[in-house]
Amino acid sequence: MEGKVLVAVFMGSDSDLPVMKGAVDVLAELGIRAEVHISSAHRTPERTAELVREAEAKGVEVIIAGAGMAAHLPGVIAAFTVLPVIGVPISSGSLQGVDALYAIAQMPPGVPVATVAINGARNAGILAAQILSGRYPEIREKLRRMREKMAQGVVEKDKLLQEKGIEGFMAK
Amino acid sequence: MEGKVLVAVFMGSDSDLPVMKGAVDVLAELGIRAEVHISSAHRTPERTAELVREAEAKGVEVIIAGAGMAAHLPGVIAAFTVLPVIGVPISSGSLQGVDALYAIAQMPPGVPVATVAINGARNAGILAAQILSGRYPEIREKLRRMREKMAQGVVEKDKLLQEKGIEGFMAK
Amino acid sequence: MEGKVLVAVFMGSDSDLPVMKGAVDVLAELGIRAEVHISSAHRTPERTAELVREAEAKGVEVIIAGAGMAAHLPGVIAAFTVLPVIGVPISSGSLQGVDALYAIAQMPPGVPVATVAINGARNAGILAAQILSGRYPEIREKLRRMREKMAQGVVEKDKLLQEKGIEGFMAK
Amino acid sequence: MEGKVLVAVFMGSDSDLPVMKGAVDVLAELGIRAEVHISSAHRTPERTAELVREAEAKGVEVIIAGAGMAAHLPGVIAAFTVLPVIGVPISSGSLQGVDALYAIAQMPPGVPVATVAINGARNAGILAAQILSGRYPEIREKLRRMREKMAQGVVEKDKLLQEKGIEGFMAK
Amino acid sequence: MEGKVLVAVFMGSDSDLPVMKGAVDVLAELGIRAEVHISSAHRTPERTAELVREAEAKGVEVIIAGAGMAAHLPGVIAAFTVLPVIGVPISSGSLQGVDALYAIAQMPPGVPVATVAINGARNAGILAAQILSGRYPEIREKLRRMREKMAQGVVEKDKLLQEKGIEGFMAK
Amino acid sequence: MEGKVLVAVFMGSDSDLPVMKGAVDVLAELGIRAEVHISSAHRTPERTAELVREAEAKGVEVIIAGAGMAAHLPGVIAAFTVLPVIGVPISSGSLQGVDALYAIAQMPPGVPVATVAINGARNAGILAAQILSGRYPEIREKLRRMREKMAQGVVEKDKLLQEKGIEGFMAK
Amino acid sequence: MEGKVLVAVFMGSDSDLPVMKGAVDVLAELGIRAEVHISSAHRTPERTAELVREAEAKGVEVIIAGAGMAAHLPGVIAAFTVLPVIGVPISSGSLQGVDALYAIAQMPPGVPVATVAINGARNAGILAAQILSGRYPEIREKLRRMREKMAQGVVEKDKLLQEKGIEGFMAK
Amino acid sequence: MEGKVLVAVFMGSDSDLPVMKGAVDVLAELGIRAEVHISSAHRTPERTAELVREAEAKGVEVIIAGAGMAAHLPGVIAAFTVLPVIGVPISSGSLQGVDALYAIAQMPPGVPVATVAINGARNAGILAAQILSGRYPEIREKLRRMREKMAQGVVEKDKLLQEKGIEGFMAK
Repeated sequence: MEGKVLVAVFMGSDSDLPVMKGAVDVLAELGIRAEVHISSAHRTPERTAELVREAEAKGVEVIIAGAGMAAHLPGVIAAFTVLPVIGVPISSGSLQGVDALYAIAQMPPGVPVATVAINGARNAGILAAQILSGRYPEIREKLRRMREKMAQGVVEKDKLLQEKGIEGFMAK
Repeated sequence: MEGKVLVAVFMGSDSDLPVMKGAVDVLAELGIRAEVHISSAHRTPERTAELVREAEAKGVEVIIAGAGMAAHLPGVIAAFTVLPVIGVPISSGSLQGVDALYAIAQMPPGVPVATVAINGARNAGILAAQILSGRYPEIREKLRRMREKMAQGVVEKDKLLQEKGIEGFMAK
Repeated sequence: MEGKVLVAVFMGSDSDLPVMKGAVDVLAELGIRAEVHISSAHRTPERTAELVREAEAKGVEVIIAGAGMAAHLPGVIAAFTVLPVIGVPISSGSLQGVDALYAIAQMPPGVPVATVAINGARNAGILAAQILSGRYPEIREKLRRMREKMAQGVVEKDKLLQEKGIEGFMAK
Repeated sequence: MEGKVLVAVFMGSDSDLPVMKGAVDVLAELGIRAEVHISSAHRTPERTAELVREAEAKGVEVIIAGAGMAAHLPGVIAAFTVLPVIGVPISSGSLQGVDALYAIAQMPPGVPVATVAINGARNAGILAAQILSGRYPEIREKLRRMREKMAQGVVEKDKLLQEKGIEGFMAK
Repeated sequence: MEGKVLVAVFMGSDSDLPVMKGAVDVLAELGIRAEVHISSAHRTPERTAELVREAEAKGVEVIIAGAGMAAHLPGVIAAFTVLPVIGVPISSGSLQGVDALYAIAQMPPGVPVATVAINGARNAGILAAQILSGRYPEIREKLRRMREKMAQGVVEKDKLLQEKGIEGFMAK
Repeated sequence: MEGKVLVAVFMGSDSDLPVMKGAVDVLAELGIRAEVHISSAHRTPERTAELVREAEAKGVEVIIAGAGMAAHLPGVIAAFTVLPVIGVPISSGSLQGVDALYAIAQMPPGVPVATVAINGARNAGILAAQILSGRYPEIREKLRRMREKMAQGVVEKDKLLQEKGIEGFMAK
Repeated sequence: MEGKVLVAVFMGSDSDLPVMKGAVDVLAELGIRAEVHISSAHRTPERTAELVREAEAKGVEVIIAGAGMAAHLPGVIAAFTVLPVIGVPISSGSLQGVDALYAIAQMPPGVPVATVAINGARNAGILAAQILSGRYPEIREKLRRMREKMAQGVVEKDKLLQEKGIEGFMAK
Repeated sequence: MEGKVLVAVFMGSDSDLPVMKGAVDVLAELGIRAEVHISSAHRTPERTAELVREAEAKGVEVIIAGAGMAAHLPGVIAAFTVLPVIGVPISSGSLQGVDALYAIAQMPPGVPVATVAINGARNAGILAAQILSGRYPEIREKLRRMREKMAQGVVEKDKLLQEKGIEGFMAK
C-alpha cells in the first residue's frame, strides 16, 4: 500500500470541509493516503461520475462522501461504482442532520451506503481503514493499537477521577 | 400543444406506479399528454440522465419524479436539467415517507425541486398543468373549471348534509 | 417580458423579509421583475385574497409565499388562484421549520403548493424562473448560464483544494 | 339557550365526518344544538368565510373545525372571526396527524386556535360546552354530572377488577 | 366584569414567568383582571388542586396553565375543574417543547385542554378573552378592535415596503 | 415477604389491561404479590391520590403505572409518594406511544419516574423485582435464575439454528 | 448504611461529567455514598463489565449510567447485573438527546433500564435514593423532607409573587 | 476464498431471522459463505463477545449484526473487534425502527458501525461483499454483474411500460 491513494473523500461544498477533515486526519494517523474532492451531486453531476471512475481506475478502494440536507452525494456516488461507499450525514440547516441521515441511510435495495453518525467523519475514516485492513494486514495492526490507546485513555481518565474526585478532575 | 408530450413522469421502480398513476390520470383529465418512465437514480443513473436529455430535446416542459425512502430521483433529475422538476415523496418502508419528504424538499441552493405532499401525485399533475398554463392559456381555463367543479362538489356535499343530517349522510 | 412584473412574493410578517429577500435577489439576478408584499393569511385574510387577485389581473404568472410555524399563507393563496404557487417554509420558533414544512407540503388533493427547502427562498426564486422559462426562452438561457457558473465555481474550488491541500484551502 | 344553535362544526371533507361526529354527539348529550358544515379552506375559501360570518350573525358562540394533513381550516376560520375556534387535528395520510397537529397548534400571535388531541373530536365538543358554560350555567351543571359519571365508571371498573381479578375481568 | 378576577394563570415554576407574562399582558391590554400563581403539578399537587378550587369559588371563569417538558400542569388542573383550561407548552430542555406540546394536547377523552402554540402565551390570553366574550360583550368589542389594529399594522408595513423597497425597509 | 402485597400496578383505563398484564405476570413468575388498580389521573384524581396513600400504608414498596397519550398517571402518582414509581408508556392513538414516552420520561427535577420502553410492562415488572431485591435477597436469586434461563434460551436457539440451518429453523 | 458505597455512577466519557455530577450531588445531599467511574461500553467493554462485577461484590445496590448519542452504556451494564440500573440520556450532537433517550428506554424484554429525562441526572440520584429507601428507612425520611422543602420553595415563590406582582418578582 | 466462512451474521433474537435472512441470501447468490448466530447483547453478552472472537480467529472478515428497538448488538460487537461491522436497524415495536436507526448509526468516535436502511439486510449483504471485494477480485466481478442485471431489470420494465401503457403494465 506504500504511497498508493486508497481512499477518496468527496464533499459537495467547501462548507463541509471542517467536518470532513476528520476523516482525512484519522486516515493520515493510520498512514493511509487519501485524495479529497469537492464535487456536487446536483451542481456537477457528470464531473462527480467522472471523478468516481477516475478514482476507481487509479486504485482507490473505498470512497467516503459527506453531505448535508437532502444529502444525495453518497448515494449518487454509490450508483456509479461497486466499491464500498461510506456516507457522512452533515448537520446543516434547520433539520440539523436528520434529513441527511435519512437521505443517506435509507438507500433502496441493491445500492448500499455505509452510513455513520451525523458529523461522524472520524468514524468514516476508521471504517474505511477497517475495510482496507482485509487486504492490508498492517492497517489492522494499527487499528488495534489505536483501539488500545483509546481504551488506555479512558482507563487513565478513570484513574485520575478516582485520585482527584469530581471537583478536582473538573478543575484540571 | 396538440399532441405534443409536455410532461415526463419518472419513477424509480414499478412499485411506485399505483401512486404515480395519480399524476398521469389528472394530466389526462386536463388533456395534457405525458410520457411515463421507470428509471432509477441508483440502478440506472446514466440511462436516467439520458432519458431526461431526450425528454428535454423532444419538447417536454415539466418533469414529475416520484421516489420513496432516500428519494434521490427528483434531485438527480433536477441536476441534469433546468426544466421545472416536481418531486413526489412516496410512503414506503418504516419511515412512511418522512425520509422521502426530507430527501426531496431539502435540496441545496441552486437546484430546486418543487415538492408536493407525501403520495401527492395528483397534486403533482395539477402543479405541472399550472406551470404549463403560463404558455398554454387553454390549460389555465381547464384548471379554473376543475377548481370550480371541486368547489361545487364540496357545496353539494354540504347541501346534502344539511338535508339528511349526519346519520342520513353517512348511511348513503 | 420587458418591464412586466411576472412574480409576486408574499410573506406574512416583515420578520420573514431577511429570508424571503433571497427569492427577490435571485429573480433580480435573472432579470425578472417581482413585486413584494407583506400580507397575512390570519391577520389580513381578505386583503391577501385581494392582492392575489390584483396580481393575477396585472399579469403576474408565479406566486412565491413564505411563512413560518402553522404556515398557512402559501396554501391560502393557492386557494384563490390557479397560478403556480411556491411555498417557502421559514424556520422560526421551537420546531425550527418542521411545522412550516408540514403545513406547506401536505396540501390536500386539488390545491398544490410547490414546496422548497426550509428557508430555501433562493431556490423558490430559481423555481419561479424555471416555471417562467416555458414561456420566456431568454430566462431558460439565463438559468443554463447560472447553472454552468455554479458548476464552474465547484470545479474551481476543487482545483484550488488540489493545489493548496486542506490546510491551505481552509486558511484562505 | 333553548333551541338556539350555539356551536358550528366545520370540516373540509366528508371523509372527516366519522371523526367529527364525536363532537356533535357529545354536544347532543349535553343538550347543545350544533350545525355542521362541510366547507374547505382550499376548495371553497370564500364560502367558508361566508358560512363563518353567517354563523356569527345567527348567534353561534363557538366554532369547532377539524382538518387533516396541512390542516388550515381552523386557522382560516379563526382569521374571519373573534369567536373562540377549537381545532381538531385529524389523522390521515402518512404523517398520521402530526402534520395536522403542528398546522393547527402552531398559530402565530394574535389569532389563536384551541387545539385538542389528534382525532379528539369528543374533547372538542366538551371544550365547546365548557366555553358556553360561562354564559349558560345549566351547561356547567351538566358537565359536572358528566364528569361524575365518568369518575363512577372508572371506580366501578376498578371494583369489578378487584372482584374478578385480571383474567376474570378480561374474559367478561 | 368590573374589578372581578376572571382568569387564573398557573405555572409550575418561576422560570416559566418570562413566557407566561405574555398571557397576563394581553389580558391587561384587554382590561381583563387575572391572578397569577406558581404551583406545581408534581411538587405541590394538593395546593394546586386547592388553588384551582379557590379560583373557581372566587368566580374565575377561565384557567391558563403553562408547563414545559412532561408538562402535566394543564391536564392536572383540568382534572379538578370543568372550567375551560388553556395549556401553553413551554420550550425547555433538549426536546424544545415538543414533549410539552404532546403532553398537553394529547389529553384523553373527557378532560380536554385547549392547547396553543409552543410558548404561545399571548395567544392563550387572547383565547381566554374570546371565551369570556360570550358573556361579556365589551370584551368581544375590544377583541375586534385589537384584530383591526393588527390588520392595520400589517397593511401599513406593506405600504412602507412598497414605498421604500426591501433595502430601504430593512434599513429602517 | 410472604403474602405481603409489595407492588401496586395502576392504569388509567381498562383498555390498558392487555399491556399492563405483562407486569403482573412477571411479578407472579417471581413470586411477588401485586395489587392492580384502574384509576385515572384525569377522571378520578382524588381517588388515585387516595389509592396511592392506601398502598403506601399497606406496605407497598414499588408502584408501576401505565398510561398512553398525554400519559400523566405515573407522574401524578409520583407527586403523591416518595416510593419508586415505574412508568410504562402505552402505544395508543396516532402518535403510537411517542407522546406517552415523552410525557413519562421528561419529568422535572425532584420527582423522577423510572421509565421503561413503550409497552414494556414486562420490563416494568422485572425492574420492580430488581428494586425489591435490595431488601429481599430471595428475589435477587430468582432474578439471577430468570436471567440464566433467558440466556440458555438464546444459546439453545443458536444451537438449533446451527443444526438445522435457517430454512430448517424457520420451518420448525 | 454508614460509610458503605451504595451507588455506582458510570459515564462513558469525562465530557459527561458536568451533567452526571447532578446525580452525585443529590446523593451527597441525602447522605448516600457513591463511587463514580469513567468507563466506556465501546472503548473499554471488558473493563466496564469488570467494574460492574466489582461494584456488585462491594455491596453497591443501584447503578446509574449516563450516555449520549447511541447511548449503550446503561443497557450494556444492565446486561452484566440484576441490580437496578438507572439510565440518563445525555444531550449531545445533532439529535440533542432523542437518540440517547430511545437507545436507553427502548430496551428489549428481560433487561430493563430505568430511564429518566434527557440530562435528568439529578432525578437519577433521587430515584436511586427511592430504591435504596426500601431497605434504609432513614433515606425515605430524608426524601420526604426533601420533597417538603421543594413544596415549601414553590409555595414561598408563589407568596412572593402575590406580594410583589410579576414585575416586582422578575426584578428581584 | 473457496469454502472459507468470510462473513458472520448476528441477530439478538430469532424473531429477527425473517429480516436478516436477506443478508444471508444475497451472500449466497454471490458465492460468499456466511455463518449465522442468534446471540444477544443483553441476554448473552459474554457469549456474544466469545462468538465474535471465535469468528475473528476463524478468518471471518466482515460482521453483520441486526437489532431492533434500543439496538445495541452491532455497537457491542464493534466494541470487541476491529473488523468492519455492518448494522441493520430492524423495525419492531411502536417506534418502527427509528429507535434502532439512531441506536446503531449514532456511534461515538472511535468505534464505527456501517449502518444500512431500516430492514435493509439485503444491502448489508451487498455491502459486506463490496468490502470483501478489495481482497477477492472475483467478488467485485460478481457485484458488477449483479448491478448490470439490476439495471437491465429496470430497463426491461420501462420497455414493457412503453409497450403496454400503465393499465396494461399494472394488469400483468
